[in-house]
Order: sequence, then structure tokens, then C-alpha cells
Amino acid sequence: MRDVAIVGVGMTRFGKFLDRSPQDLGLEAVWNAIEDANVPMNKIQVAYVGNALGPQLNELKGTIGQHILTNAGFQKIPITNVENACSSGSSALRLACLEVASGNYDMALALGVEKMYTGDSAKAAAAMASGTPYAKLGFTFVAEYALNLKKWMKKNAVTVEHFAKVVVKNTSNGSLNPYAQFRKPLTIEEVLNSRLIANPLTLYMCSSMADGAAAALVCPKSLARKYSSKPLVEVAACELTSGSFPYPGKAPESTTSRTAKIAYEKAGIGPEDVNVAEVHDAMAPAELKIYEELGFCQEGQGGRMIDEGRTTLSGVIPVNPSGGLAAKGHPVGATGLAQIAEVVWQLRGEAGERQVSNAKVGLTQNQGGLVRGDNGACTVTILKR
Amino acid sequence: MRDVAIVGVGMTRFGKFLDRSPQDLGLEAVWNAIEDANVPMNKIQVAYVGNALGPQLNELKGTIGQHILTNAGFQKIPITNVENACSSGSSALRLACLEVASGNYDMALALGVEKMYTGDSAKAAAAMASGTPYAKLGFTFVAEYALNLKKWMKKNAVTVEHFAKVVVKNTSNGSLNPYAQFRKPLTIEEVLNSRLIANPLTLYMCSSMADGAAAALVCPKSLARKYSSKPLVEVAACELTSGSFPYPGKAPESTTSRTAKIAYEKAGIGPEDVNVAEVHDAMAPAELKIYEELGFCQEGQGGRMIDEGRTTLSGVIPVNPSGGLAAKGHPVGATGLAQIAEVVWQLRGEAGERQVSNAKVGLTQNQGGLVRGDNGACTVTILKR
Repeated sequence: MRDVAIVGVGMTRFGKFLDRSPQDLGLEAVWNAIEDANVPMNKIQVAYVGNALGPQLNELKGTIGQHILTNAGFQKIPITNVENACSSGSSALRLACLEVASGNYDMALALGVEKMYTGDSAKAAAAMASGTPYAKLGFTFVAEYALNLKKWMKKNAVTVEHFAKVVVKNTSNGSLNPYAQFRKPLTIEEVLNSRLIANPLTLYMCSSMADGAAAALVCPKSLARKYSSKPLVEVAACELTSGSFPYPGKAPESTTSRTAKIAYEKAGIGPEDVNVAEVHDAMAPAELKIYEELGFCQEGQGGRMIDEGRTTLSGVIPVNPSGGLAAKGHPVGATGLAQIAEVVWQLRGEAGERQVSNAKVGLTQNQGGLVRGDNGACTVTILKR
Repeated sequence: MRDVAIVGVGMTRFGKFLDRSPQDLGLEAVWNAIEDANVPMNKIQVAYVGNALGPQLNELKGTIGQHILTNAGFQKIPITNVENACSSGSSALRLACLEVASGNYDMALALGVEKMYTGDSAKAAAAMASGTPYAKLGFTFVAEYALNLKKWMKKNAVTVEHFAKVVVKNTSNGSLNPYAQFRKPLTIEEVLNSRLIANPLTLYMCSSMADGAAAALVCPKSLARKYSSKPLVEVAACELTSGSFPYPGKAPESTTSRTAKIAYEKAGIGPEDVNVAEVHDAMAPAELKIYEELGFCQEGQGGRMIDEGRTTLSGVIPVNPSGGLAAKGHPVGATGLAQIAEVVWQLRGEAGERQVSNAKVGLTQNQGGLVRGDNGACTVTILKR
């Protein structure tokens, strides 16, 4: 297998864009990635497009990748649409990497797109929950998530203040990110006093829906310099597993732990080598759990990590410098590739006010899907400058 | 890249199964493929699952592959759901082949599944049309297809009798296939006199919806013998392109022609070497067009092919020995892999009463998706005994 590099990334701002279509959002991200990579569009030989909720929420209910790309002139290439719930975008990236690593193609596009604001937010909430076992009972995704939370909090001495601190960190980072949906930094009090959604989760502890798209262009490491003079970002690992969902209080080995182990081994590094990470904080508690699952701290030490500020922009291991899902919002199919865009910018030193100092190794963790409350899909990607 | 073999295939009967879920159908196909391959289930390392209309028609609206597989014990492996309209199943196969050819994994599962009968056939018809440009006007997929047909018929001296002959051949083949939804052989008169759906297409010229699933297991050619003592079936090519849809009267080079050229070149054969083919006769006229696009005859000679009986079970190049979509029905995401199952059985000499004599090279052609009436996805797969 060949060494693979990400030669360009691009995204739209995440937000509420009632007048924009998934096609329009998707193309903006693609053009941005093409411009970033300095790759002529006719060099793109294969494409994977991640989208999760389009058939439920949008007028366009199938072959979204073909609708976005062939109308824009990317004709005749193989295009495959990928759905892996909240990890659809990173699953698309994994396939783009496989096409290039295998030698099948020299330039692959991964695109993630989601259009969730339709004027009917109850419909979007129902769509998010549609794969969960309690959907029939009228549970939202958040309600189901909250079900298992208290046991985990007690066991690990985690409090709602810890959750609030995650949101404070992420909205502070997000205030520096022009791509974020929400730019207002929140205080602990604001988070704790915001509307209760599903005890103990308050509004600001839950990521918001969003419209948006993100894209990455993948080529052999040996070809990247041909196009771009920007610092080269290598894909050291891009791994996917399904199985146990990292549900607080459940699952002896979470999907994230398992996927991270595989990714670290493939990249030949350990968690101590990671300089910056973007993780799936769909709910604030998840970020604490993910610190542990990725090996950034020992089990049960997630709360301490946030207490000690170890994951802030200037911390030992900055997590979610982009603002994470808390600040950016969570356009399901786009999230995984937006994480990739952020880490690429961080590794290149292009992250502006939210730049982490001297990051050489970055990691993204993207998870999704609930099957009987335990099983899902998770990707862990490791990028190296 | 390594040589790849299909070591096992399996499918459900296609039909109307109001009491069966997509999960139930999917698993039956998987178990049948596993039994056929004689591969222990814990050897399966990666899975791709093709499904097109689930989010629109079924209660389960996402991560269908995880729901089918992780609940059955296929946990922890990478599972990715693929949607490429009517070519979703073959697109899943292509990725299973890529995983194995690249050396990433040694045993890959491709599954296609669709559950279309829900007690509301208008809903299914609307779902089929949802990706087409005229859906807003209330056009069904069939109506849109019929729009461009008359011009093509005139140019190529094709008549409705030719369409009827395709259906007569396919329903005759289907009457010999225990997996087909419809087992009654039809006469030319019955086809021509059936209810007019969209002039000039009558009911029996249009494939029916169906519930069903089909699966294939892919491994390196060098490993296949370890599991199965059945004749070895090699994947000589499995190609996907998007772009122009092979729409009668449109598109100078159709997606099928282009994809077939790539597949023939990769397999190192020409159309004259193909001994048996399964093609996408979603509407009867398509089969005639596909004869030409695949190079089984010259352009404009599709009608003559069927007149001369060259594609019957005992013809020079038997097409749709399974009965095709006309007899089997068309459970969208499953169709591409059902074609693969049929060709594998034909190459192994296991096709019973519908066995083609001494087939050594088989081809499947699976197409789907309409973008502005012209663009779609198409796969051509070439298998060799």
C-alpha cells in the first residue's frame, strides 16, 4: 500500500442556511478543497460522498454525490455515496484513502454534506433518533444518551460542572473559528443554567443541528508536492470499526478505544505523541469519555483533564480547537471531514487565532450510529506533518 | 493488487414479504453466502452494505448494515453502507473487491438489501422517482423513462413487439428460477395487452418492486480453495463510473458503454468472449440498448438480437438467465448482487434448469440514478471460471 497525503481541504461555514441546498453546500466545500490543493478538477479520479439524513430531510433523496458532482462537471468518474450515521464523512475519507493507497487512483475526493435546517426542527430531531431503539417511544437521541449517563458520572466522579467546562473550552475555541455556527463563548453558569433538555444535559451541552459541508483531496504522498507547496500532511492511519458504542456506563471496550488502538498501531505512535485532536463531542460528556478512550488520560480521569485545562488551546493536548461540535454544530455527514480540515490546518500552521503551537501529529475521532444502545461506527484518523 | 475471487454467494427469493424486515432478509442472504462459501463467520473482516430506499420506505432509516450485521454477531469489523440508487449492490461489491485486492483484508462481505412492499405501493413508486428531475411534476420513474423512448425506437427500427420479446424470454427464464418473484412465463400477446403504464410501456415491460437481499463473499484468489471446493470464480473486473445514463435517444456515449470498455480492458477480454450476462432490464427496452452498449451487437441491432433468439438460454450469448428484473423483480439495493449470484451459479454449473452450457466468462451490468435525465451510476463486473 502506498503512503497517502491530504493535499487539500475545504469546508463551508456551518450554520442555518435555509436558502441553500445540499448541492450548493457540497460544491462550495469541493471548490474550496480544490483551491486549497491547487489541483485541476480534471485530475480528480474518484469520489466518495458522506451524507446521513438527506433521504429523510431533503427534497433530494438519493445519489446525492452524483447530483452534486456530475452537474458541476465531475462526470464519468466513479462516485459512491456512503452512509454511516454521524461518521459518514470520515467513512468517505477512509475509502478515498483506500483508493489511493491501493494504487487504484492517484487523486480521490472525500466530501461530507448535510442539510438539517428545513424549517421543521422536530423532523430533524426525529431523523437523528430514527436509528435508535427508543425512537418508537418518542425518545430523542439526547434523551436516550442521557439514560445511561448518571451511572457513569457516579462511577467516575464526574459532575455537570465538568460537562459545562467542556462547553466553555469548546465555545471559547469556536469564538475564534470563522467556520463555526456559534461564535459566542459561554460561561459555566450560562451552560448550567441553559434549558434542561434531558436530565442532566442542558441545551448547551448538546451539539446543535447545522447545515454544512467539508471536503478533502487525497493523493499519494509522492505526488502531493506536485500540486501544493503547503506543508505536507500524511495520513498515517484512517481506521473504521463497528461494534460497541462508547456509551457512558456500557460496553467494556468501546468502539473508540478499539479503533484508536488499531490506528495508533498502524501509525506507529501512541496517545502521548498526539499534539492536537478533534473529537466527537455530540454531547459534552462524550468528550470526557473520549479523552480516556483515546488514551489521553487514564480511565476515570476525564474530569481531571478538563479541570486542569490540559485540553485547552495552550494545554498539553489541545482537543477540539475548532470549537468541536459544541460550537460548530453537527451537520451529520459533514462533521468527520470538518474535523479533518481543522487538523490539516492546525498541522500546517494555518489555523489563525485558534492555532495550536507546533503540532506535528493530529488525530480525529468521529462516531455514530446506535444499535440496541451499544453498537455503532467509529473512525479514528491520524495525520502527520 | 491481488487477484480476487468470489468464494460464496447467497440470496433470498425476491417477492412480496409484508411480514419480513430488511434485517431479516439481509441476514438470510448473508447466511446463505456463508454456507455456500464454507467460510466461518469470524473470518469475515469487513463489510459493505448496499441499500437505496430504506430511509424513505422502512422504519429503520440509517446504519442498516450495522443493524443487520452487529446484531447477528458480526461485531467490531468495519461496516460501511453504500447508496448508489439501483447500482447500490454492485457498488458494495466493488468496494469489497477493493479491500481484498489492495491487501487490506482477506475476506470481505458485500450485501445488498431492499424492502419495498410496505402496503403502500404509491410511496414506493414515489421513492423510486425521488432522484429524478420530473418527480416534482408527479412523474413516476417509468413515465420519465418513456419520455425519450419513441425517438430511439424510430431511429433504431425497434417496436413494442421487440420489447415484448425481451419480456417473453426473461419470464421464460424466470419460470425456471426458484428465486424469482414471478414464475409465470408470459406470451407476446399477454405482454402487449397488459395495462398501459406509460406509452409505449405496458405493465409487463416494467420491472416490479420487490423485497429481497443478495450477498457475496470475496477473498484473494489464492485463498479461495482453502474454504470452498466449488469451481473457482475470479473477479476479472468490477468497474463503476458515473455520468451519462444510457437513456434511449440521449447521450452519445452511455455510462454502460464507457464502463464496459474499462471492464473489458481490465479483464483482457472483449464482448465476444462473454458466455453469459445478467443486465439491468428495469424496463424491457433497456435490455435491447444494453446489448448494443456492451458490444454484444452493433448499434441499432438490439431488436435483431432478440428477433433471432441470440440471447435465449440456448443462444450465442444468453442474457438474463435468471429472468432478469422482469421476472425476479427489482429490490433496488439487492439487484446488483443478485446478478452476481446468478452469474456465479452459471459459471459453476449450479443453475439447475436454467443452466447455460459451459459458461466460462460471465458479465453483470447494473445501472441506476438519474441526474437531469442524463447522469447516473453504472457498474460492469466480469467474472471468470
